Amino acid sequence: MASNNPEKSVEPIIIAVEPFGGSIRNHQPQLPLVFFDDAAVTRGDGVFETLLLHGDHACNLERHAKRFVASSRLLDLPEPNLDYWIAATNKALEQWRERTDRDAKCVWTYTRGRASTGIPTAWITVTAISDHVLEQRQHGVKVMTSPRGYTIDRVETTSTDDEGNVVATSSPVAPWLVVGAKTLSYAANMAALRWARGHGFDDVIYMEGDKVLEGATSTVVTVRGDKLRTPIPGGDILPGTTQAALFEHASQHGWRCKAKELRREDLLRADSVWLVSSVRIAARVRRIDDVKLERPDNEDEIRALIMGALGA
Amino acid sequence: MASNNPEKSVEPIIIAVEPFGGSIRNHQPQLPLVFFDDAAVTRGDGVFETLLLHGDHACNLERHAKRFVASSRLLDLPEPNLDYWIAATNKALEQWRERTDRDAKCVWTYTRGRASTGIPTAWITVTAISDHVLEQRQHGVKVMTSPRGYTIDRVETTSTDDEGNVVATSSPVAPWLVVGAKTLSYAANMAALRWARGHGFDDVIYMEGDKVLEGATSTVVTVRGDKLRTPIPGGDILPGTTQAALFEHASQHGWRCKAKELRREDLLRADSVWLVSSVRIAARVRRIDDVKLERPDNEDEIRALIMGALGA
Repeated sequence: MASNNPEKSVEPIIIAVEPFGGSIRNHQPQLPLVFFDDAAVTRGDGVFETLLLHGDHACNLERHAKRFVASSRLLDLPEPNLDYWIAATNKALEQWRERTDRDAKCVWTYTRGRASTGIPTAWITVTAISDHVLEQRQHGVKVMTSPRGYTIDRVETTSTDDEGNVVATSSPVAPWLVVGAKTLSYAANMAALRWARGHGFDDVIYMEGDKVLEGATSTVVTVRGDKLRTPIPGGDILPGTTQAALFEHASQHGWRCKAKELRREDLLRADSVWLVSSVRIAARVRRIDDVKLERPDNEDEIRALIMGALGA
Repeated sequence: MASNNPEKSVEPIIIAVEPFGGSIRNHQPQLPLVFFDDAAVTRGDGVFETLLLHGDHACNLERHAKRFVASSRLLDLPEPNLDYWIAATNKALEQWRERTDRDAKCVWTYTRGRASTGIPTAWITVTAISDHVLEQRQHGVKVMTSPRGYTIDRVETTSTDDEGNVVATSSPVAPWLVVGAKTLSYAANMAALRWARGHGFDDVIYMEGDKVLEGATSTVVTVRGDKLRTPIPGGDILPGTTQAALFEHASQHGWRCKAKELRREDLLRADSVWLVSSVRIAARVRRIDDVKLERPDNEDEIRALIMGALGA
């Protein structure tokens, strides 16, 4: 893609993280980083988180860190030392700020490590946000709905918590299945996005029949009047860190927020539909399959609300 | 794992492959190989094949090469130049033979490449076969049966081909789904193996209810009298290259070979059950869940048959 984004010329930052704490050191991005026998490369066997660096902080850090630990646990990786990861992130941010004052994408990666050593591998990268992402943030996305293509076999029960929210509890029949972990085995999502792009769309919303699940790399949020809705997370719907931050923040500002089973018609009759995620933040859905979704009067207000939730 | 296998001290060989043909060059295995922004690392987005190097050849090369091309196509990667891959493999084998006359494991990896360049990344590695694998080849494996944990949603039809074999034709409802491709997104298989090992087993056979699917990284073959059977490949049962070579070879030697739906009881009443794959070649199943499978009289004959099929 042609680019006149000055950010593109900002050199990425890579910080190698000692998995059990220890030195924090920079790695030269022009050199290879990962060994041939690392489980990340040979098996997609590792976890990651993607964070937005804005101003003097990593947005929504606590929720990302919490999910990172949960993903590691699901993959039976040694518990990461969060203080250490956060220190490395702050160091990376500091280095980024010496280069530019623009936002950046920060990825934490934690793998099972090299076959020859058995010691986990860990690193943090900071890179410029692509034009593509900035454009989608500004102009929205055309979305194809689609079945996910597979079903996690599970026993599912639904209950109501103290605050009246519906809570889904779901146990996969295969107890090791890393459902709910953000793993590096993302080939299916990437293939879905390629398919969508090949058919004139920008993104995908997975459906189970008529039921809305999630975006390929984002959480679905609808706005109608003063109500924000998102599909009930759990099972193979990854709990969204950005959506969680948004709902907490919006509730404090008078919006009524609830996780709730959403149907296709809920998308079509909403005032607006959003795909929220950490770096793109919020992309308004401006088309679902062959239906155009009109720009709502309060688009800027909603966008500001989501940015506000992240302190971005 | 402690080891007195002299092979362990043989240095791995890495050959970087130019994806569109060109120079074949060695990469130093003590140095990192893969860049931080390679799709193999960030998304498990790539394909691989594992071959056995034995004597002066790569075993079953044609079938591996064919599946490699099929996997690439399913992932919408540019068609690999097979002549070039084979030349690189021969070069790697030649180098290995300068070091030792023992068998080796050769892996072909082909990824979508770096985000910053968009050019696929490709390399070949040759490494010693681990003691663990040699031990399982010799002594067999204890296997846990288990549901796969997910179901590929698909439309399936069954027909009979000219030779009377039942052929399953299966179309996933999600057309991009990379079912049948050997991708780097293997985290679920790795998790299943970890679970099995944590419970005193060596390996996993996936089941769909009572129906036998495949091993975590192998094809299931049963022997009863002069009959060899394997589950019908297709759908989410990866066509096995070693099983295919075995069936062709065994047919020529008077065995009756057929792909056929297998049930749990077929495993239990077989003379012997085998997990076949390219490097471990054949591991006899000596326990399925809590049932011990007795060693058959013809164990050595069957093993020799499978080795013979690979020219190993």
